[in-house]
Amino acid sequence: MATNSGNGGSDRQRVAQQRLRIIAGHLRRPEDGNSAILAAEECKGHVSEKTDASSEGKTVPRRRQEIMKWNGWGYSDSKFLFNKNGQAEFTGKRYRLSGMIIPALKDWFEGTFGANVHHKSPATPIVTSSAVQPPNLNEAFVEALKSTGIPFSIDAEDRLFRGHGHCLNEIFALREGKVGRVPDLVVWPNCHDDVLKIVELACKHNVCLIPYGGGTSVSSALECPPEETRSIVSLDTSQMLNESGYCTGHEPDSMEFSSLGGWVSTRASGMKKNVYGNIEDLVIHIKMVTPKGVIEKSCQGPRLSTGPDVHHFILGSEGTLGVVTEVTMKIRPLPEYQKYGSVVFPNFEMGVACLREVARQRCAPASIRLMDNTQFKFGHALKPQVSSLFTSFLDGLKTFYITKFKGFDPNRLCVATLLFEGGREKVLQHEKQVYDIAAKFGGLAAGEDNGQRGYMLTFVIAYLRDLGMDYYVIAESFETSVPWDRVLDICRNVKARIVYECKDKGVQFAPLSSCRVTQTYDSGACVYFYFAFNYRGLSDPVHTFEQVEHAAREEILANGGSLSHHHGVGKLRKKWMRDTVSTVGLGMLKSVKDYVDPDNIFGNRNLL
Amino acid sequence: MATNSGNGGSDRQRVAQQRLRIIAGHLRRPEDGNSAILAAEECKGHVSEKTDASSEGKTVPRRRQEIMKWNGWGYSDSKFLFNKNGQAEFTGKRYRLSGMIIPALKDWFEGTFGANVHHKSPATPIVTSSAVQPPNLNEAFVEALKSTGIPFSIDAEDRLFRGHGHCLNEIFALREGKVGRVPDLVVWPNCHDDVLKIVELACKHNVCLIPYGGGTSVSSALECPPEETRSIVSLDTSQMLNESGYCTGHEPDSMEFSSLGGWVSTRASGMKKNVYGNIEDLVIHIKMVTPKGVIEKSCQGPRLSTGPDVHHFILGSEGTLGVVTEVTMKIRPLPEYQKYGSVVFPNFEMGVACLREVARQRCAPASIRLMDNTQFKFGHALKPQVSSLFTSFLDGLKTFYITKFKGFDPNRLCVATLLFEGGREKVLQHEKQVYDIAAKFGGLAAGEDNGQRGYMLTFVIAYLRDLGMDYYVIAESFETSVPWDRVLDICRNVKARIVYECKDKGVQFAPLSSCRVTQTYDSGACVYFYFAFNYRGLSDPVHTFEQVEHAAREEILANGGSLSHHHGVGKLRKKWMRDTVSTVGLGMLKSVKDYVDPDNIFGNRNLL
Repeated sequence: MATNSGNGGSDRQRVAQQRLRIIAGHLRRPEDGNSAILAAEECKGHVSEKTDASSEGKTVPRRRQEIMKWNGWGYSDSKFLFNKNGQAEFTGKRYRLSGMIIPALKDWFEGTFGANVHHKSPATPIVTSSAVQPPNLNEAFVEALKSTGIPFSIDAEDRLFRGHGHCLNEIFALREGKVGRVPDLVVWPNCHDDVLKIVELACKHNVCLIPYGGGTSVSSALECPPEETRSIVSLDTSQMLNESGYCTGHEPDSMEFSSLGGWVSTRASGMKKNVYGNIEDLVIHIKMVTPKGVIEKSCQGPRLSTGPDVHHFILGSEGTLGVVTEVTMKIRPLPEYQKYGSVVFPNFEMGVACLREVARQRCAPASIRLMDNTQFKFGHALKPQVSSLFTSFLDGLKTFYITKFKGFDPNRLCVATLLFEGGREKVLQHEKQVYDIAAKFGGLAAGEDNGQRGYMLTFVIAYLRDLGMDYYVIAESFETSVPWDRVLDICRNVKARIVYECKDKGVQFAPLSSCRVTQTYDSGACVYFYFAFNYRGLSDPVHTFEQVEHAAREEILANGGSLSHHHGVGKLRKKWMRDTVSTVGLGMLKSVKDYVDPDNIFGNRNLL
Repeated sequence: MATNSGNGGSDRQRVAQQRLRIIAGHLRRPEDGNSAILAAEECKGHVSEKTDASSEGKTVPRRRQEIMKWNGWGYSDSKFLFNKNGQAEFTGKRYRLSGMIIPALKDWFEGTFGANVHHKSPATPIVTSSAVQPPNLNEAFVEALKSTGIPFSIDAEDRLFRGHGHCLNEIFALREGKVGRVPDLVVWPNCHDDVLKIVELACKHNVCLIPYGGGTSVSSALECPPEETRSIVSLDTSQMLNESGYCTGHEPDSMEFSSLGGWVSTRASGMKKNVYGNIEDLVIHIKMVTPKGVIEKSCQGPRLSTGPDVHHFILGSEGTLGVVTEVTMKIRPLPEYQKYGSVVFPNFEMGVACLREVARQRCAPASIRLMDNTQFKFGHALKPQVSSLFTSFLDGLKTFYITKFKGFDPNRLCVATLLFEGGREKVLQHEKQVYDIAAKFGGLAAGEDNGQRGYMLTFVIAYLRDLGMDYYVIAESFETSVPWDRVLDICRNVKARIVYECKDKGVQFAPLSSCRVTQTYDSGACVYFYFAFNYRGLSDPVHTFEQVEHAAREEILANGGSLSHHHGVGKLRKKWMRDTVSTVGLGMLKSVKDYVDPDNIFGNRNLL
């Protein structure tokens, strides 16, 4: 796959600085922390040699319902449940945790939330087609679409699957069998030219298009605007795909399901951005189809000074301007060596100070995350029954804690998980550097297993919310970015605000309110919050939840945090957009929208 | 100056991740490669604690003519000349080369260009006020401006100084005493509020504003549009300034004179971007005054996903949207240790392959530059007479070449200069890594002095063009960014195209046509070209020059290079903007302009 333009390096080396052209589709899930296997087509080193991708190698079928849940996260065969013995287990075979018993989860769950595994709040088992409104079809558009041969569907299930993301309120409503406005038709383009045709027809017939990638939005971005009177067409990019075997290193937590087009549209951030960069650092070239035509740059120079960077008009546009049909990305060789690690700190303050120092010295590993004490305990509750992977950890844990962390307050200590990648020798040097810094902040190395488990849980944690919802517990996560000198304040104040608001709004049980620092930068960090509570006794739990979430965001903003680090704005956070970018900034964004899409064909009403 | 929010680090460490709020003014010039001393005000860690800067600590006076040339580069007291003995020397006391004799320059100069130090083409010695058109004043605006107390001038010299940048044709015309349209009035705001008032008055009275920072533009960006019928006001930001003593690490070659507002407006790139980043990586917060009001973000989170990044609407806007009045930038501690270095390669191809490998391994020093053979020789011609700095180099050189580079073809070898920065031990490790890579590509270490001299010349090289112009030699530089696999092609083809075009257009002497790779990235590099020729015998040398420059840019674009890596577009390159960003992209830029500035108050007509 390498070109012949390298000089002296090995094939593997030469590949490193090649570029990949990717049709906006899905990537394969990395299991056990291996780097993403990129489903994409390699650019042969010359723009002119690019060809359209074939549609082989899909990872998500058109009929998502064949493998995925309609009212919860992820694959249908994979879920947490309390079995007949009252023990938690994780079903299926897809994940390393699949098929395992998690002995401590029940006690943690009941103790934390005041829940009871005998008090269930089951979901509506199946959705009936009658719950979905009949499609509001634009007949002329449908006829024209038929003549293109591009596959589409008006099936109720197909439409239902494209009408939501994974906000708490969206999933809660589905579990109750409540279906709001959904797209009237789903269309699956295979290539850039298909998208051109669809957009052209949508403009001609005044149909509203909502691009759909992986459906992992947590910003209500996929919600169909209820006030939309036109026919709404979901443009599902999941079939625009091809295969290859490189690594972009971009690994958002949603990467099993999310799409490249979605990453670009929402300004996604990946777990390993310290090595590979966030999406804006990875992208070399973007092609987008808009109602006004195709936008793209004419060259692939690594950095330009040709006026404002039009890539940044696309990055973060959240489907309001058009469909991203092609992206050229940097690729790197798969890392020669990976090593996990973890560090226990006596308290969260010391942990944050350590992460800040690591960032200052610019020696952050591919990933470094700091969990607070609540998440530390939660992590322990998620330990599975003895298995090969965890044997050493479990065997040694008790002794370890008694001896090594003597003097640490178990209700204050916190843990950082680490992932190093690179050449073996470099990784070992790098590891030493980071542990040396940690030691200055009272941090003690706590083993590879703890670290590895933390990252493995990344992909199953999203399944846990569904378990909670079976037992009256609702949960959500949200995030922000904040300068270093505000990190401690924002963590403390937002967690306290959640506790206060829950009490104030009548929540009967103490909530879980927790955070972790997930990304570090020169000038600040990304902080990720979890909150959850038992809603028994509340008449309108979703409304209460929304009040608390709103208050938490206000608290974030008051503490100098941003509206979003990587989740985006969608419709959930758009009320704060004017304050975030100023009236003039919002006007600039609107002016671009008005120019590109005067008829609001891309009418998802995100952002603006 | 450090805040108290750090934990456990030293004061110096804590400063590292502070942020600086800077009034858009000048920085001090770094002498001898030391990091920039930032003339700026430290942000105390809280946005709310910011105050307006005082106007102390200016580095460039309002009356630039007191210290700077009106028809050439830089300080009046600093210039190259051939003295009565026919030896080249560099005058003044500002630079390390000042006061030195450069023995080899005359032979190189006469030999390279077919020039003769007895055939002079002297500049018009003084500009007469009568050469400058009387100001076209908007009386109502002037009256209103007076009432604000903000200093302004209609003096012919003041206006002349703000009517041009440093494109060849601009300087050539001045040397001939030809003055085109210049601003009608110059105004010097001291702070953000002054800018607000000026913009408000300009809108009210329909006056055209052209922001002016350091006047170092090489894109005709400061040229007053001849078709502009309104009064043109030059808004000179050079007095918006305050002092402190940190390092941003941003070091464009023009940094003695260029301004922070200019860096933001033009998407500047600095020599040490490998450590510190380009301007877009350094900026945390920007405030800009537009006719529509002030644009700024509400928070200083290190990374946001809140729609398209409005900072990128400002970066590169080249004065068409408003005035950048305040920037918060990252700062770093001054580097503990610096070390120069150089590597000689048997040929340019090996040098490029080495730089690519260094980039792939992501171990580029703060600066790494690869000069072609022509520049290698040129560098030797610029060696000054023995002085303390160069003693060891000069003493050892002859032996050095005879022994060490035996077998290298002197007409093919090329040199890379290196600058390492950081902790001493790390620098030494880093140095070893880079020299080890270089060795794989046939590169031989060629001493610190060679490297240091290369960087020292950065700030005096701009003075050389003026020397050439005294002897019928005109010269220009231009740059591009290009994917790695095109670097060799573009260097070869563009240099050849220049030679071909000169011959084709009737240039009587072989031109100098040379390049260097000045910046490296994951996916490509910045290539910087020089060309110069003796114009004796040409009837319209500037026109010929422009034809060659145009052809060279066409060649760049045809070879996959960008329209600009960091010089910007201005008016010089705007004819290629549509091809560069596509019609839709250009439409987006225009839509923003039309929204923010419907009356085209910022009427410099750059970009669009």
